Amino acid sequence: MPEQTAYKPGLDGVIATETKLSYLDVDAEEIVLRGYELIELAEHKQYLDLVQLLLQGALPDDEQRSSLEQELKKEYDLPADFFSLFSKLPKETHPMDALRTGISALAGYEKNLDGRREDEISKTALRLLAKIPNIVANSYHILHEEAVIEPKQELPYSTNFLYMITGKEPTQAEADYFDQSLMVYSEHEMPNSTFAARVIASTNADIYGALTGAVASLKGNLHGGANEAVMHMLLEGETTDGFRHLLYEKLKNKEKVMGFGHRVYMKKMDPRAALMKEALRELAVERKREDLFEMCEAGEQLMKEEKGLYPNLDYYAAPVYYLLGIPIDLYTPIFFAARTLGLCAHVSEQYANNKLFRPRVLYTGPRGLHP
Amino acid sequence: MPEQTAYKPGLDGVIATETKLSYLDVDAEEIVLRGYELIELAEHKQYLDLVQLLLQGALPDDEQRSSLEQELKKEYDLPADFFSLFSKLPKETHPMDALRTGISALAGYEKNLDGRREDEISKTALRLLAKIPNIVANSYHILHEEAVIEPKQELPYSTNFLYMITGKEPTQAEADYFDQSLMVYSEHEMPNSTFAARVIASTNADIYGALTGAVASLKGNLHGGANEAVMHMLLEGETTDGFRHLLYEKLKNKEKVMGFGHRVYMKKMDPRAALMKEALRELAVERKREDLFEMCEAGEQLMKEEKGLYPNLDYYAAPVYYLLGIPIDLYTPIFFAARTLGLCAHVSEQYANNKLFRPRVLYTGPRGLHP
Ligand SMILES: CC(C)(COP(=O)(O)OP(=O)(O)OC[C@H]1O[C@@H](n2cnc3c(N)ncnc32)[C@H](O)[C@@H]1OP(=O)(O)O)[C@@H](O)C(=O)NCCC(=O)NCCS
Ligand SMILES: CC(C)(COP(=O)(O)OP(=O)(O)OC[C@H]1O[C@@H](n2cnc3c(N)ncnc32)[C@H](O)[C@@H]1OP(=O)(O)O)[C@@H](O)C(=O)NCCC(=O)NCCS
Repeated sequence: MPEQTAYKPGLDGVIATETKLSYLDVDAEEIVLRGYELIELAEHKQYLDLVQLLLQGALPDDEQRSSLEQELKKEYDLPADFFSLFSKLPKETHPMDALRTGISALAGYEKNLDGRREDEISKTALRLLAKIPNIVANSYHILHEEAVIEPKQELPYSTNFLYMITGKEPTQAEADYFDQSLMVYSEHEMPNSTFAARVIASTNADIYGALTGAVASLKGNLHGGANEAVMHMLLEGETTDGFRHLLYEKLKNKEKVMGFGHRVYMKKMDPRAALMKEALRELAVERKREDLFEMCEAGEQLMKEEKGLYPNLDYYAAPVYYLLGIPIDLYTPIFFAARTLGLCAHVSEQYANNKLFRPRVLYTGPRGLHP
Repeated sequence: MPEQTAYKPGLDGVIATETKLSYLDVDAEEIVLRGYELIELAEHKQYLDLVQLLLQGALPDDEQRSSLEQELKKEYDLPADFFSLFSKLPKETHPMDALRTGISALAGYEKNLDGRREDEISKTALRLLAKIPNIVANSYHILHEEAVIEPKQELPYSTNFLYMITGKEPTQAEADYFDQSLMVYSEHEMPNSTFAARVIASTNADIYGALTGAVASLKGNLHGGANEAVMHMLLEGETTDGFRHLLYEKLKNKEKVMGFGHRVYMKKMDPRAALMKEALRELAVERKREDLFEMCEAGEQLMKEEKGLYPNLDYYAAPVYYLLGIPIDLYTPIFFAARTLGLCAHVSEQYANNKLFRPRVLYTGPRGLHP
């Protein structure tokens, strides 16, 4: 029988699992990753350092980082003929749906699909981290009838990712902003997609399935899909005045404004958003798009005054991606590629200490009917 | 901040959502579906009646049932060239992974992927219910380099499903056992896969994504995957003595015995298992496989005596499917096809009264580290 615990819609405030991976300490305004503060890591480290930290438990030294990078590079390529899968999909397929299909199909090539030990999952995680950027970039190109852009072994991991998307080798500064965005997207305690992945893994299902479910979740506009929605809104607004007008309209119509609010930091600024805001400030100057930065700030101000709501990461990541020349449809897939790291770490932790997720319900329908 | 609610691993006993769809009343030993008892429905009704009940809220009369069946038949066919997707997958692909990939890819053909209203989801649900049996049966055939078996319009819904699997038109009795198994698999409150689907849908993600995540969950052997595991175990046991020996070995090695136990009815018989046991008793006589029935009963007895555990649905559904001539690898995909009904009803209910699932964690890692 269900115990008489109070029912919290959306499991708001309910502890669903133990974890050593991360924690949002709202009072201290810290996002904790295995004891480190995410923002400090994002200021001083690189995405690959976080890969080592989350999957192996400690930050790497230079040698370890470069051997990790070598391992990833060995796994960049997708199976022969894999891309033909995407040419079979209808052209209207959403990039997140293509990614979902791609990860699901990739399971058929995994030699160790039944492995559940930490060291086994760690290896599979590296394969996924190596291949998912390739899937993200090239499923998009194929659906747009563009040529496939093969990974370049000589580029660093995230530089190569950005290169496969745009087809241009990024400058160091561009690569750095992109790498930083991947870090802040990499892991964030128990958002919906991570929860979905752990729920799925708890049946002892494989990690490809857990990640496929997480892509499905992240697509929703209350979650990862928000970054794309933000950019469309900024483009629709066009100018600061236009954007303010648009936001007022949305509030008047009681629409939710994408890029604002967060279950956990509802009444505080998302520290990751603050970091991306600084990146946007710099990039905007460099690209002479100070108007875009101004628009965003005006929106932030308006939402604080009108609703007491603060921007979340998606609000400032979106215009950063825009100025980096990334197609809008790829913002959420990139979010997923970055979060692959946190997801793999969580799935591994779930296997190591598993209990099937199987909650109960509050039944509000009729009783006692007979056919 | 997380409230100080007690932490229940696996959300054991925690109420995760409201629902008008179904409820396991363990004390009364009733599985309630919109007010009716599932077992009573399974004894007197057909799968299509449950489709109408769960999606439209009431049992159909004869006319409504036949118009529902006509609507389903119109949607049996898959898009042209859809099957070539499966010929691209490696031959080793698990049937559940092929199904997961197929449902994910099908999203690209859905004209109303953004529809969230009840009437819209109801239409999409019918499309899914019409097409998923076709995907289940024919992805299997293609991966096994067998010819595709096209649906036969003149056969009733579940008869056609069984026909597409075996390539033989079943007898009325076979079709009835199969239809009854689909009914008992159709809906069951908040098992892991249904929970995964609602978690995903709560980001406002589409129903194809929610179902894709549910396939991933159901594959796990602590959940749907158990029916296949049971059959392998019965075949390995070979005889009643062999099977008893095998079970003792597993218990000695502290292995979990598939097909026994259930989060909710841990200390009672699953009423659905009792129904399938009767089906097995009859089928076994007809097929002169009383030995198989005996083996199963001996296993049931042994597990009750040794562990106080009772069989769940999967324990008796597996040998029924075996005697119906269904390939073992298809047991879990068939479970999914049947459960598509409950899943669509839950996703629709989630959209109609949504709150993002976003729980918290108990952080047990270090604090205060600096890079
Ligand atoms: C993320 C989010 C789902 C978390 O919200 P939650 O904890 O589930 O809470 P609710 O959605 O129920 O919101 C609580 C209240 O704040 C309001 N609110 C929350 N976010 C809002 C937003 N972005 N715009 C306008 N109002 C908002 C709600 O309308 C609700 O008001 P009410 O109590 O008057 O009905 C929500 O803030 C949201 O939808 N944001 C926009 C999507 C987004 O940016 N997602 C990315 C998150 S990283
Ligand atoms: C379904 C299931 C996961 C529900 O279990 P749960 O609520 O999560 O509880 P646990 O798995 O923690 O089991 C509780 C105790 O019963 C034991 N147990 C439960 N099911 C068992 C089984 N099938 N065989 C042997 N022991 C079992 C566990 O070992 C555990 O014992 P312990 O307390 O000494 O460690 C579990 O019964 C199971 O794994 N069954 C086999 C798989 C199966 O048939 N699944 C289909 C379900 S429809």
